[in-house]
Amino acid sequence: MATIASNIPAQSRIIIEDVQPEIDSGKFPVKRITGENFNVSCDLFADGHDVVSGRILYKKVSAKKWLEAPLNPVINDRWQGSFELSSRGEYEYTIEGWVDYALNWQHGIERKIKDNQHVNVELLDGIQYLERILKEVNKDDKDFLTNCIENFSDEEKYSVAVDYATSERLHIILHKNPKKDFKLTYERTLKILVERQKALFSSWYEFFPRSSGKNGEHGNFKTCLEVLPHVAKMGFDVLYFPPIHPIGEKHRKGKNNSVTANEGDPGSPWAIGSKDGGHDAIHSELGDLKDFKKLIDSANDLGIEIAMDLALQCAPDHPWVKEHPEWFKWRPDGSVQYAENPPKKYQDILPIYFETEDWKNLWNEILRIVLYWNKQGIKIFRVDNPHTKPFRFWEWLIKEAQKKDPDLIFLAEAFTRPKIMHELAKCGFTQSYTYFTWRNSKHELTEYINEIAHSTSREFFRPNFWPNTPDINPYFLQDGNEWAFYIRYFLAATLSSNYGMYGPVFEFIVHKPIFGKEEYLDSEKYEVKSWDWSNMTNLKRLITQLNGIRKHEKALQDTFNCRVCDTTNDQIFAYYKSDAEANNHLLMIVSLDPYQMQAGRVKTPIGEILQNGGYGLQMQDLITGQSFQWYDEWNYVEIGQPKLPFHLFRMTKL
Amino acid sequence: MATIASNIPAQSRIIIEDVQPEIDSGKFPVKRITGENFNVSCDLFADGHDVVSGRILYKKVSAKKWLEAPLNPVINDRWQGSFELSSRGEYEYTIEGWVDYALNWQHGIERKIKDNQHVNVELLDGIQYLERILKEVNKDDKDFLTNCIENFSDEEKYSVAVDYATSERLHIILHKNPKKDFKLTYERTLKILVERQKALFSSWYEFFPRSSGKNGEHGNFKTCLEVLPHVAKMGFDVLYFPPIHPIGEKHRKGKNNSVTANEGDPGSPWAIGSKDGGHDAIHSELGDLKDFKKLIDSANDLGIEIAMDLALQCAPDHPWVKEHPEWFKWRPDGSVQYAENPPKKYQDILPIYFETEDWKNLWNEILRIVLYWNKQGIKIFRVDNPHTKPFRFWEWLIKEAQKKDPDLIFLAEAFTRPKIMHELAKCGFTQSYTYFTWRNSKHELTEYINEIAHSTSREFFRPNFWPNTPDINPYFLQDGNEWAFYIRYFLAATLSSNYGMYGPVFEFIVHKPIFGKEEYLDSEKYEVKSWDWSNMTNLKRLITQLNGIRKHEKALQDTFNCRVCDTTNDQIFAYYKSDAEANNHLLMIVSLDPYQMQAGRVKTPIGEILQNGGYGLQMQDLITGQSFQWYDEWNYVEIGQPKLPFHLFRMTKL
Repeated sequence: MATIASNIPAQSRIIIEDVQPEIDSGKFPVKRITGENFNVSCDLFADGHDVVSGRILYKKVSAKKWLEAPLNPVINDRWQGSFELSSRGEYEYTIEGWVDYALNWQHGIERKIKDNQHVNVELLDGIQYLERILKEVNKDDKDFLTNCIENFSDEEKYSVAVDYATSERLHIILHKNPKKDFKLTYERTLKILVERQKALFSSWYEFFPRSSGKNGEHGNFKTCLEVLPHVAKMGFDVLYFPPIHPIGEKHRKGKNNSVTANEGDPGSPWAIGSKDGGHDAIHSELGDLKDFKKLIDSANDLGIEIAMDLALQCAPDHPWVKEHPEWFKWRPDGSVQYAENPPKKYQDILPIYFETEDWKNLWNEILRIVLYWNKQGIKIFRVDNPHTKPFRFWEWLIKEAQKKDPDLIFLAEAFTRPKIMHELAKCGFTQSYTYFTWRNSKHELTEYINEIAHSTSREFFRPNFWPNTPDINPYFLQDGNEWAFYIRYFLAATLSSNYGMYGPVFEFIVHKPIFGKEEYLDSEKYEVKSWDWSNMTNLKRLITQLNGIRKHEKALQDTFNCRVCDTTNDQIFAYYKSDAEANNHLLMIVSLDPYQMQAGRVKTPIGEILQNGGYGLQMQDLITGQSFQWYDEWNYVEIGQPKLPFHLFRMTKL
Repeated sequence: MATIASNIPAQSRIIIEDVQPEIDSGKFPVKRITGENFNVSCDLFADGHDVVSGRILYKKVSAKKWLEAPLNPVINDRWQGSFELSSRGEYEYTIEGWVDYALNWQHGIERKIKDNQHVNVELLDGIQYLERILKEVNKDDKDFLTNCIENFSDEEKYSVAVDYATSERLHIILHKNPKKDFKLTYERTLKILVERQKALFSSWYEFFPRSSGKNGEHGNFKTCLEVLPHVAKMGFDVLYFPPIHPIGEKHRKGKNNSVTANEGDPGSPWAIGSKDGGHDAIHSELGDLKDFKKLIDSANDLGIEIAMDLALQCAPDHPWVKEHPEWFKWRPDGSVQYAENPPKKYQDILPIYFETEDWKNLWNEILRIVLYWNKQGIKIFRVDNPHTKPFRFWEWLIKEAQKKDPDLIFLAEAFTRPKIMHELAKCGFTQSYTYFTWRNSKHELTEYINEIAHSTSREFFRPNFWPNTPDINPYFLQDGNEWAFYIRYFLAATLSSNYGMYGPVFEFIVHKPIFGKEEYLDSEKYEVKSWDWSNMTNLKRLITQLNGIRKHEKALQDTFNCRVCDTTNDQIFAYYKSDAEANNHLLMIVSLDPYQMQAGRVKTPIGEILQNGGYGLQMQDLITGQSFQWYDEWNYVEIGQPKLPFHLFRMTKL
C-alpha cells in the first residue's frame, strides 16, 4: 500500500531538507582546501512538538567508517554543524535525524513541573528509555541510571526522583546515547573535493621562456635559470609558461598575427606540433627534457612550481593529423577548418574533433600526455580555451589525473559566458580566469565580488584575477599611466587569493596596443624578445612588497571572505577581509582614478572588530608603514596621485 | 573507462541545469489549476560556439506519448517555454537539448558570408545535413531540399546556392526537423499536480450548524437549510462546518473551555466520538445522514459546496479507544495522555498514536472515512491540526483519496512553524491557513505577500486568508471598531484568491475576548447560539458586494499575481493585480488605520498598463462607483474614517 520508500519506516516523522552546501542536487562536489572547517546546515524538523535530534555523517570516500559531527539548532528549524577537513581527497557527507523520544520525555517532565503538574506517571513512563540504554553506557552512567530507575518507581522518593529526572547529567547521558527510532537519513550523499592550499592561495607569474635570452637571441631553459631568481624575489610561487612544444611550420603566423611568417619568425607557441613532435615533445630551441627537468627542480628550490600550458589543438603539421586523421573533422575538399572565434581567426591551428567515434583513444591519449608531464614534475596546468572542449571530457580527465596525483591543479582559461565558466568549475577545474580584467568601476567591482564571494558559485568556482595576459592588454592600461598599473595590480593581489600577471611586460609598464584593440602591439606571442630582468621599477617594488604581505596576512589567503565596504565617493572602492579565526583583519581602500587624488569617507567594520571590547582601531598601513587611530565607523581618506592610490590597513584593537 | 552515464553518449556536449520550477530536486509536484499556461525555464548550453536547440517534453502521467513544446533563448544561456494545462490530474515534464549541427552549419555560412569569405566548401559540406532529412519532410519541402542539394554541388550556381543556403525557408525546414545527434535529456522528470479552479479561487464561510436554530434551541441540518440562502446571498461558495460527529461525554468541556461541563453543555465538536459512534457517524441532534445529504444537495443548488472538518483525534469515549487500543499510546497507569499544545490543554481529546505498529490498519481506516464522506457528496475537507500527524501519512492519504476523486480539496489548519506549513503543502494539501491573521502593519504585510507570491513556495503553497476563526479573535478586532473589520475583511478578500471567515460572528462585529487572550468570550465552541441571520449590517453589505466583484474581476482570482506598490504613508498599503491575459488591472489601496483618515501618495503601475499606448488611467472604484483620471505615477489619496478605508480601482486606459 505504501508510497513510503522501502528503507524508511512508515512511522518516520522526520524531515531533512535544503541541505547546504549542495550543488545541483549533489551532482557535483563542493570544493575546499585542507585544514578548513566545513559548515553544513539543513532544515530538520518533525510534525508536532517533539524533541528532534540530528547529526552530520561524514568520511573520506575511501574510508569505511562514518564519523559523526553534532548538529545544533540555529533558528526556525534550521540546524548547523561542522567538521574539519584534515586531509586531501574526496569526502562525503549526509545528515541523519530522528525524533528523540527519551529527550522528549525529559523535556515533557520539565514542562509539566513548570506547569505545577504531578509527574508520577511520567516518571514511571521514563523507566523504559533508561532501561534500554543501560547496557550501552559506562559503569558510572549505569549506576546513575539504575539509581534513577529505582527512584522513579518509588512513590515515596518523588522529590528525589524529579531531581534525577530533570538533571543535567541525565540529559547528557540521554543525548549521548540516542536510540534513533525510525531515524531518517537524507536521501543524498554529498561530496567535497579537498585540495591542497595552493588551490585557493597562489601567485602566478607568466613569461615566455624564449624571451629569457639576451640581445634578441632565442631564450631557452638554461637562460630561464637566470630569470628564476627575479621571479622568486618578487615573491611568486607559480611560474607559468606558454606551450613549450614544437611549433608548427605550416601556416605559421608572422609578427603581429600576420598570416604569413617571414623567415626566422618563431610562430605562436599555441600552434602546437610539427615534424619534431606533438604535445609530449619539447621545442628544440628551448632545450631538451633534461634541461626542462633541471629548470623544474631549480624552481622548486626557490619555492616556485612550474605550470605548463595544456592547449588541446594542433598545428597543421602536428603528428596527430597524419596518425589520427579521425580526430579531426574533414571537409568535402579534404581540408580541416582552422580554429575560429569570430572575428578572431587562427589559421595556424586546427581544432580537435571531440565528437569523433574514436573518442576513447583520443581521451586516453590526452590523459597519457597529462600524466607524462606530471611524471616529469609538473603539478599545475593552465588549460587553454577549455570551453571549446566537452564538459564531460574535462570531468573525466581531471578526475582520472587527480587519482594519480591529488596535488594536480588545473586553471581554466575560459573567457566566455558565465554559465560555461561555472560549468567548467563544476567539472573539476581548480581555478578559473575571470572577468576581473574588465571590471573597473566601483559598481562593477562590487557586483562582481559579491557574486564571486557570496553566491552559490563560491562552493565550486575559485577565481584567479589577472590584470593582463598575452591576449589582453586592457584599455585601462593602454595609456601607460603608472598609477593605473598600481591600481589594477593592487586590486588583483588583494581581492583574490589566486592572482597572476603576465610579465615582465606588466612590471615594465609595457602598454602599447594594436590600435583600437585590447591586444599588445608587437606581441611576444609572435616574436622573441629580450628583457633587462634586473631593472627594478617602482611597480616591481610594490609587487615584491605585496607578495610578501600576502604570505604573512592570513586574511589575504582567501577570496570568499571579501566584503565590500560603503564609501562616499564612487572613485573610492573599499573592502574588508578577515581570517577564519578572526585574528587578522584587513581593510583595503583603493582609488579607481589613476589621474588625481580622491577623497571621501569609508564605512569601517569597527563594530565587528570591537564586538568583544576595545575603544578604537589602530590602522597600520602595511605598504607605507604609516599608522592611524580610528574611533568612528565612517573615516576620511585621501588617496591617489601624487601619493599611492591605496591603503592596505591591518586593523587591531586599541 | 567512462564516468559518463550509460544512456548519454560520451560525445554529448549539451548541459541542462537549473530547470524551474523544480521543488526539492523533483521530490514534490508543482501545483497549478486547469487552463493555466505552464512556464518552464532552464540553463541550456554546450561548450564552444555551436548552435544549440532544446524542447520541453510533457504529458499527462497516464498518457504514453510525450508532447513537445518549444524552448526559446531568453538571455545568458537561459531558455524558456510553456504549454497549456488543459485538464485535471498529474502532468510530467522534462527538457531535452542537443547541438543542432544543421542549424550550426547554416549559421556558419551566414557568418562567413558577412566576413566576405567564399563558402563553396561549406555548401558541399551542407549537403549531408539536407540529405538525411529528405525522407522525413513533405513533398514541397523535399523538392526544395533537392533543389538546394543540386545547387550546392554545382560551382556555376554559386550565387543561387548561397541564397538557398541562407534562406529563411531552409532555416525553418532544418529547425522543424532536428536530428538531435548526441541529444541529452535532463536527468529528472518533474511533476505538476493540476487541480480544479476552486483550489486557487474560493470564498469560505464557516458557521456552527448547531447555532442555526432559534431562541437558543439546538440547530440541525434542517434549520441549516434556512441559513443557506443568507450564505449564498453573501456570495460564498464553500460552507465549512466544524465536526458534525457525535461529541464525547467523558471529560466534556463546559462553557468557556471549563474542565467540567454542566448538565446540558453541548461540548466541543472537536471532541469526536461517543457511544453513538466515531468519525463516520453524525451527531444525532444535528440529524441523520439523509438530512445531511439533503443539505449538501440544497447547498449545491445554491452554488455552495459543504466542507467537512477532518479532525484526527478522539474523545475518551470514541469507539476506537476500545476497538483499537493499539492506536493510542498508553501510559504505565493505564491512561492515555490527553492532547496538549502548551499552554493549551485539551482534556476532552486523546491524540492518535501514529507510531503504532498497527499503522497500516490505522491509515486504511482513515482513508476509508474520507472516501465514505466523499461518497456522500463531500469534496472539501478542512483538516484540523494536520501538523501533529506525520507528513508521510498525509502524502499517502491525499494521493490515495484524490485517485478516487481528483476534485477533492484539503485545507490545512496548521498555524505552526513556517517550514512545517510548507512541508504540509508539499505533501499535497491544496490550501493552507496562514499568518495573515497576525500581519497588520504595512511592513509585515509587504514582507508576507512577497514571500507568498514571489518566493519558491508559490509553486506549492496556496494560502487561504482568514481574518478570524473560532480559535482566533485577533487583538486588532477586539475593540469592535467597525473600520477594523472592514480593513481586515478587505485585505483577506483582495490579497488572497482563497479566503474565509467565521460567521456570523464576523459580520455581526462580535468582538469580546477572554481578557488578555486572542479567544472569543462565550465561544460557540462550547455552547449553542442563536442568531438573527436576516440582520443586514454594513459589513455584510460590503461582503456581498466584494464577493460579487471577485467573481467578475479575473485579477482577484489569483494570489501569485499580487505586487505591492510603494506609498508615502506607512498607514497606507497598496497592491496591484492583473490577470494572465493583462486585460484586467486592479489597484487596491487600504488604510491600515481604523481610527482616522490617512492621506498619502501611491506609486501606480501606470507605465505597465500604458506600455502599448494611452495617455492616462481611468480609475473606477468598484466599491463606491466613483471615477478618477490619473496621469501620473504618484497619486494622492485620502481614505479612512469617516469614509471607507480603501479603494478598489479597476484601471483602464484613457
